[in-house]
Amino acid sequence: MSRAALDRLFRPRSIALLGASEDFVKISGRPLKFLLDKGYGGKIFPVNPKYTTLAGLPCYPNVAAIPEPVDLAIVALPAAAVVDAVTQCAARGIPAAVVFSSGFGEVGEDGRRLELQLAEAARRGGLRLCGPNTLGFMNTFDRVMATFSQAGEGEASEGPVAFVTQSGAFGTAIFALARQRGLPFGYFVNSGNEADLDFADLLDYVVADPRVRVAAGYIEGLKDGRKLLAVSERALELGKPLVVAKVGRSSAGARAALSHTGSLAGSDRVYSGVFRQKGIVRAAHDEELLDLVSAFLHCPLPEGRGVGIVTQSGGAGVLMADRAEEIGLVVPELAEETKERLRKVIPAFGSAKNPVDITAQFIADPGLLRSSLEIVLQDPHVDAAIFYLGLMERFADQVVANLREVHAGAKKPLLVAWAGAPEAGLRALGQSGICVLPSAARAVNAVRGLVEYAEARSRWKQSRGAESRPGGGREQIQSLVRACRSEGRRVLTTGESFGLLSRYGVRVARSRLSRTPAEAAQAAEEIGYPVALKIESPAIRHKTEAKALRLDVAGRQEVLRAFQEVVTEARRHAPEADIHGVLVQEMVRDGTEVVVGVHHDPQFGPVVMVGLGGIFVEVLEDVSFRAAPLSREDAEQMVAELRGARVLEGVRGRPPADVPSLIEALMAVSRLAADAAGEIAELDVNPLLVLPGGRGAVAVDALTVLAEPGTGSP
Amino acid sequence: MSRAALDRLFRPRSIALLGASEDFVKISGRPLKFLLDKGYGGKIFPVNPKYTTLAGLPCYPNVAAIPEPVDLAIVALPAAAVVDAVTQCAARGIPAAVVFSSGFGEVGEDGRRLELQLAEAARRGGLRLCGPNTLGFMNTFDRVMATFSQAGEGEASEGPVAFVTQSGAFGTAIFALARQRGLPFGYFVNSGNEADLDFADLLDYVVADPRVRVAAGYIEGLKDGRKLLAVSERALELGKPLVVAKVGRSSAGARAALSHTGSLAGSDRVYSGVFRQKGIVRAAHDEELLDLVSAFLHCPLPEGRGVGIVTQSGGAGVLMADRAEEIGLVVPELAEETKERLRKVIPAFGSAKNPVDITAQFIADPGLLRSSLEIVLQDPHVDAAIFYLGLMERFADQVVANLREVHAGAKKPLLVAWAGAPEAGLRALGQSGICVLPSAARAVNAVRGLVEYAEARSRWKQSRGAESRPGGGREQIQSLVRACRSEGRRVLTTGESFGLLSRYGVRVARSRLSRTPAEAAQAAEEIGYPVALKIESPAIRHKTEAKALRLDVAGRQEVLRAFQEVVTEARRHAPEADIHGVLVQEMVRDGTEVVVGVHHDPQFGPVVMVGLGGIFVEVLEDVSFRAAPLSREDAEQMVAELRGARVLEGVRGRPPADVPSLIEALMAVSRLAADAAGEIAELDVNPLLVLPGGRGAVAVDALTVLAEPGTGSP
Repeated sequence: MSRAALDRLFRPRSIALLGASEDFVKISGRPLKFLLDKGYGGKIFPVNPKYTTLAGLPCYPNVAAIPEPVDLAIVALPAAAVVDAVTQCAARGIPAAVVFSSGFGEVGEDGRRLELQLAEAARRGGLRLCGPNTLGFMNTFDRVMATFSQAGEGEASEGPVAFVTQSGAFGTAIFALARQRGLPFGYFVNSGNEADLDFADLLDYVVADPRVRVAAGYIEGLKDGRKLLAVSERALELGKPLVVAKVGRSSAGARAALSHTGSLAGSDRVYSGVFRQKGIVRAAHDEELLDLVSAFLHCPLPEGRGVGIVTQSGGAGVLMADRAEEIGLVVPELAEETKERLRKVIPAFGSAKNPVDITAQFIADPGLLRSSLEIVLQDPHVDAAIFYLGLMERFADQVVANLREVHAGAKKPLLVAWAGAPEAGLRALGQSGICVLPSAARAVNAVRGLVEYAEARSRWKQSRGAESRPGGGREQIQSLVRACRSEGRRVLTTGESFGLLSRYGVRVARSRLSRTPAEAAQAAEEIGYPVALKIESPAIRHKTEAKALRLDVAGRQEVLRAFQEVVTEARRHAPEADIHGVLVQEMVRDGTEVVVGVHHDPQFGPVVMVGLGGIFVEVLEDVSFRAAPLSREDAEQMVAELRGARVLEGVRGRPPADVPSLIEALMAVSRLAADAAGEIAELDVNPLLVLPGGRGAVAVDALTVLAEPGTGSP
Repeated sequence: MSRAALDRLFRPRSIALLGASEDFVKISGRPLKFLLDKGYGGKIFPVNPKYTTLAGLPCYPNVAAIPEPVDLAIVALPAAAVVDAVTQCAARGIPAAVVFSSGFGEVGEDGRRLELQLAEAARRGGLRLCGPNTLGFMNTFDRVMATFSQAGEGEASEGPVAFVTQSGAFGTAIFALARQRGLPFGYFVNSGNEADLDFADLLDYVVADPRVRVAAGYIEGLKDGRKLLAVSERALELGKPLVVAKVGRSSAGARAALSHTGSLAGSDRVYSGVFRQKGIVRAAHDEELLDLVSAFLHCPLPEGRGVGIVTQSGGAGVLMADRAEEIGLVVPELAEETKERLRKVIPAFGSAKNPVDITAQFIADPGLLRSSLEIVLQDPHVDAAIFYLGLMERFADQVVANLREVHAGAKKPLLVAWAGAPEAGLRALGQSGICVLPSAARAVNAVRGLVEYAEARSRWKQSRGAESRPGGGREQIQSLVRACRSEGRRVLTTGESFGLLSRYGVRVARSRLSRTPAEAAQAAEEIGYPVALKIESPAIRHKTEAKALRLDVAGRQEVLRAFQEVVTEARRHAPEADIHGVLVQEMVRDGTEVVVGVHHDPQFGPVVMVGLGGIFVEVLEDVSFRAAPLSREDAEQMVAELRGARVLEGVRGRPPADVPSLIEALMAVSRLAADAAGEIAELDVNPLLVLPGGRGAVAVDALTVLAEPGTGSP
């Protein structure tokens, strides 16, 4: 998208207010008030046939009557009048509009139709549109108050945080909480119904603004997740953290999201996977969103997972150490030298071990706080430090002064958890650029966010050099798909699936399709005994359930008999099934069962899944997802995050599995998935047998389902 | 413990202050100030040879000089003087003391010795002692300010919450946060080093006070967990919720707990299991502790898991629905009638589905809030309701008035999540007895706590009728243990273990011990082919690893050969092992592998574990614990909470397992565990094969390890 078009939206040199009112309490009156109050520097043109002047400004009967160029139209008219108004704006050459009006997609079928007309009017007129059904936006850097939200009241302090929200009311509440905390938002943007510009478009613009350092978002569902991924790539490039609360995870949540904004809530597992892949830090709720924004705003990135915890109370230290280890941080033993130095400053009834307890003594001895924190921050195993304290109404100034000194000299993240803090203390720390949170657990969670982003950024840097080899198989895939469709098939044969997998570098079990017992015996001879026999029929996707396979078949007679048995069972299971024959396959032994899959996600396009076979997938749903293609680091991380990952290291007397080959196979499947975008709906390699270390990984069965023609365009 | 003795501690008619000072800033001066300020009604006797009067009161050179009876001594002396002082108090007939002094167990070996002397002095003198190294306690009902904590400052509002904490500094911070929220604490108690009275003793007393309705605790480690369980049983009986933050979960946490209070942090899994069993609601951190206290204080118990969510913002509704389902609550579809009624009051752009979105319209139409909340609360699927709103500085009075009305008529829990609430609104709701929390997610978590406790209480009521049958096997166990010990063995034979299990009603696989191949063949004939042969040797605990077992052996010749093979493998594996023979056992098929275990926990005594076999236990550590004995409800819940529980319903084509038989077996093992307390250190039934529905559950192998003599007394 052209940045210039959005410049006109977000940094207009002049604004027309359609439906402007002199009642500053009304939706139609508030933007004018905010623009005047906050000192917007451009020209303002109220448009309303009822007035000739408004708040001292000339008021125009329609946009055509405005004598000067207009960059942005703010539309506060009844829904029925909006399409016409936007058409007139476009005709007048206005490049951008914000449409407050509700009564569109959110109110049913008629509204949806009206919204389509609106989108079409904007598209035809070359006008970019935010809304409808939006609170609008504020760009406080440039005093552009294109909103009627309560957020426009109060002080509009500019600052390096940008916030884009799909929910108006909840977004406003979050904004207000941020203001209470003194977090400076330069952008507050509500995407509304997203008839034209969507969440990702708007986020893309604000993230790129050089005055923005941290971006936050609230999402209920995306229409095009790939656009968000592109934004997150640019954000990684720019080193600007994205913190996003994504709701609509559960079935009840998804139900609500549908009825709320008409957007589709995607599968939560896919969201989590691709967010992790692209360094989007996910906040569980509004409070955590702001905690993370505060941490990113005030802290450098940590270089590892080690947290040094310093407290005035052993209890809080234990609680924080618990929480830290629970969420994957490390509470390292401090170096001997560090402990030695700490023991010299900490009272005997304190603790020089991590978590460090300096006791309430630091009130009487102000140097204690400073020196102990400095010593801990200097420890080579400590990547970030948290200082916990409670209350201290009477000693707030002293505490703040000490923390300022430590912070000024610190090169690592330093967070303060201050329970029941006096207001003045909080404000003073915030003004000094120190991240302060009101509880022990929340400070630990915030460090976790810093670590997660730092790791994602370092993965991204590593993978940037090693460009994913292009698969180059798109033409082959398309011709295969055409051939299948011409035969009226949506499912590839195992041979076809194996062919594709091989083409992308996945090793497949040696197999031959046989149509007669004699052919099967001949195939077995060539492959070598023992072999497996499996029915080959597009109608029978689960061969074990149909009992239509035989394993470990050795000898010609046995193969002849097994052929018959397999066909008989298949016919019993599915009398109508079209049977292509019986696949004779080498027996692969000693492998750890893994499932690798591709799915065409409605938001994110082709995504890759990995899970361990058997109960891990079927009972525990222990799988991880990423968007295709995968970097090596992506593939490694998605395997590592499986709960059962330890199985690959060898358990119950089994040797460790060849994980590097699994990683290669995952990357290969992901290249296939990327090339096959829009052509393939699903691909299951189940199982991929990962052999003991050094011996590779072999696809033993595969199922490929083509996309319905016309869906999932790449 | 005699309640009367603690009455003297907590409700003394007179108090002696040892080491009293006229410097009210000092530890030794503060209790006197607090007692005077807060209007303690009993007599106060300062004791300090330096003064003759103190704050207008006669001051005594020693306790012997006090002319009247003394109930409580507050000891604020240097550590070295404490043992003598307490001895003198006891000699003077003082029944209770609080010892502030530090310099005991928390400062190393010398301190630990001094603490033992102190405990002994108290015990010998018949004096009950809180501390040393404690901030003391407050009983604001009776204005007993036996503390030097900052908590003693400010207003001492009495109220129905009791709080006992093992951490002084963190406890004080929590108390201060509670005061900020307006939560009225009647007791604030710090247990200190627990040389005599421990956490459970102190909690027991305050819970039983009829003026207390909710009890909260902060624990780092218990010396005797069984005492806490007894307290929790009494609390269930009284219907008073216990909310406890237990820290020291992780290895780093446990390390800190050790160095902090010298108490042992138990295994976190055991803590979680027994807390759930006994209705102790576990808070993850200080903030959640107070959220839960507030919910229990202000809400009736819900009768089910259904949450009705009402918001002014669809976004917050989705977030809450997500969180609710994530933590096991239900966000039910509302009844048709409810939706019908809601549609009549809610604007078209709102949502009459759960989560219900009444939109910001409720500001203009005050009746909307009241009627929609009332309608939702009346829905038969709704067991608790949450109303979310943000900000509303200007409309706080109106919101509060509406909520008050709804609350007055509500019989179900109603919680308010108010983000960025104005102070006045919070205070007004709190004063009206309405639970208000500052965020959407925290309100949902609090409902989860209410549900958890309500369910525990209902399980407890159900199980109360059905007294656990006494096992009655203690004598048999003791004689078996004596016999074993006389032979120098710590491990029972499989036959002995099977005997015990049978005695308690667990079905065991038919087995015979054979010493020769011929005996084995004879045994196999009697049992019926096929059979399993397993080495019987106390030195070989893992027969599969030693390859010292053969399965599915059919026919006499095969048994003879298998006998030799098993013995040969065993000798190869462990040349020095004492081999008792070879166990011949019926082959049990089609069972789902379950592991049932007993462990002597240092805090909670005999605890029972259940897990699914194989990777569930070994890789995923998917197990649950409870204290023995188990009620039926306990056993059912511990199976249900396994992540892999669905395996028992039948997966991958297997029939559902006989879960009722598993439950019976668990209860039987738990009776055995209770009878064997102090005698048995470990018992593993591995596997217990749970057969398809109706066919029972069979123990196929069992290992019993006796306690070291003199440990784990029952």
